[in-house]
Amino acid sequence: MGGDFGPSITVPAALRALSSNLELHILLVGNPDILFPLLATTDSVLLARLQVIPAQSVISSNLTSAQAIRASHGTSMRIALELINDGKVQGCISAGNTGALMGLSKLLIKPLEGIERPALMTVIPNQLRQKTILLDLGANIACNSAMLVQFAVMGAVMAEEIIGIIQPRVALLNIGEEDSKGLENIRAAANILKKTPTINYIGYLEGNDLLTGKTDVMICDGFVGNVTLKTMEGMARMFLSLLQSSKENKQQAWWLKLLRHCLQVPGIKRFSYFHPDQYNGAYLLGLRQTVIKSHGAANLHAFLSAIEQAVQAVQRQVPERIAARLKSVLPKSD
Amino acid sequence: MGGDFGPSITVPAALRALSSNLELHILLVGNPDILFPLLATTDSVLLARLQVIPAQSVISSNLTSAQAIRASHGTSMRIALELINDGKVQGCISAGNTGALMGLSKLLIKPLEGIERPALMTVIPNQLRQKTILLDLGANIACNSAMLVQFAVMGAVMAEEIIGIIQPRVALLNIGEEDSKGLENIRAAANILKKTPTINYIGYLEGNDLLTGKTDVMICDGFVGNVTLKTMEGMARMFLSLLQSSKENKQQAWWLKLLRHCLQVPGIKRFSYFHPDQYNGAYLLGLRQTVIKSHGAANLHAFLSAIEQAVQAVQRQVPERIAARLKSVLPKSD
Repeated sequence: MGGDFGPSITVPAALRALSSNLELHILLVGNPDILFPLLATTDSVLLARLQVIPAQSVISSNLTSAQAIRASHGTSMRIALELINDGKVQGCISAGNTGALMGLSKLLIKPLEGIERPALMTVIPNQLRQKTILLDLGANIACNSAMLVQFAVMGAVMAEEIIGIIQPRVALLNIGEEDSKGLENIRAAANILKKTPTINYIGYLEGNDLLTGKTDVMICDGFVGNVTLKTMEGMARMFLSLLQSSKENKQQAWWLKLLRHCLQVPGIKRFSYFHPDQYNGAYLLGLRQTVIKSHGAANLHAFLSAIEQAVQAVQRQVPERIAARLKSVLPKSD
Repeated sequence: MGGDFGPSITVPAALRALSSNLELHILLVGNPDILFPLLATTDSVLLARLQVIPAQSVISSNLTSAQAIRASHGTSMRIALELINDGKVQGCISAGNTGALMGLSKLLIKPLEGIERPALMTVIPNQLRQKTILLDLGANIACNSAMLVQFAVMGAVMAEEIIGIIQPRVALLNIGEEDSKGLENIRAAANILKKTPTINYIGYLEGNDLLTGKTDVMICDGFVGNVTLKTMEGMARMFLSLLQSSKENKQQAWWLKLLRHCLQVPGIKRFSYFHPDQYNGAYLLGLRQTVIKSHGAANLHAFLSAIEQAVQAVQRQVPERIAARLKSVLPKSD
């Protein structure tokens, strides 16, 4: 098990998920010498739904996708993905190397028909207390127009099927709203989307509109999406820590106590709506099965959210629904 | 005068700047039929330091840079830049079309020796209550490695000369910290910066590190910088409006009153440190004279900040200092 903190985070999160979901079974893929001690005091009722699958190595975070695939045999990531292929599990969660997860998933799980490259997607909260779907978050750092269009289709399907929005609005993330703005691949994608009647394409939007709720789906390449998401997470954490900080001098303590008290009040609880941990877990969309990427630096609460996303994706049959919709929605290539 | 709100914002901001800076002279370039009525009730003492320069047209925001340059004769933006060239003013502020401002500035004001393309730079606050310099913010949507290196040099000079940081740390914005991460132009720029002893290059950092204060200067291409900055602005505005909102139901009013009261307390005033308005005004760095780009949607307070930035740049002789430092710092091309 990779990620920044490995089994010390992922094992307790898995146990928490098993406690709260009595139908869930989890297979932990990793080094048994590390995993078993972490399970030593676990209730046997939980252990009945837990299995350890041995893997002696992990994929290093500094390998490129190609290097990682070549060196993937026997790694926890590869074995976990093979378990899906073998029909032994219905979904896989990883906090490891994103490029490797993308490359190996494409190789082993295969993309859906009509999808060139899977994309990482997440749901972010906006100021209308609704949700905005954002993709790609880093699976594809350079994207041509066809890929952006496929992301738009997958994002729209997710907004309809998962969030329940009818005719979701789809926008391309750009540096201005005028037609002339942006990079060539974005302008070409806009031209295709304008001619795609099954997509409710509303045009270009800018970075600040991720939060205004002007669109239900925002599309960008993986480099921009990754930087943007991490910037948002950084901002949210900074503001929440400023609100909740207790490391203040004594003169200020009175209002901080007051503020901390206020944080228990429903009205201020709305800030917790924006806490990044509960949005951890990005769908690797466009695959034939469910693969969820957790933030590498996820804490227990955040990794638990990623497990819950995987459970939800399996229960709601996300890959099957996307596959079914893609057939009718994807523009026919001439 | 362009920008989203035109003279209705820029004229009152100019008058406010004249009131607070008794040495300042401002030339307003625009349609006299619109400008004079806005000055009708202005004190004659202020008017003595104000001059209206007629321009009958503005550059439309939906023109590309090339289109805008072709159609620029007689526009307020071109006339304002020509005033610099004619030695009649020492700096120019515009809330208009960014691409046009970049193109026309390059044509009329000329870049400094060793600079291929000027870049838009701003200063953002971080959680250590220090400042981080970020560029490019949208002057160059696609950048090769040489341009990124030049941005790094200019950013380092700005951090030293303007913020007063000795040996400022310089990082490249990327989607991971490992050498293998990111786009080819970024990796190539990293290789050059590693071999540039006059730059304190510290490696790649991610989006969230814009706010952690891990670096003094963060370098990226203009597309990524623009989206990132607007995302940060959107987040900051959302959190500040959640904090300050008064449109709540009556049950919540008690704590909101309390919170608003708290906002007067020095401790919570730290939130205002992050208000985007006071950071409006991006330097168009790498030109022989001072050109400042204001956010198109700037309000009075924000446009005033942009004017203050221009005054500061002129007083501190920013272009001259950069030119002097560039000669010793820029890597010699073989």
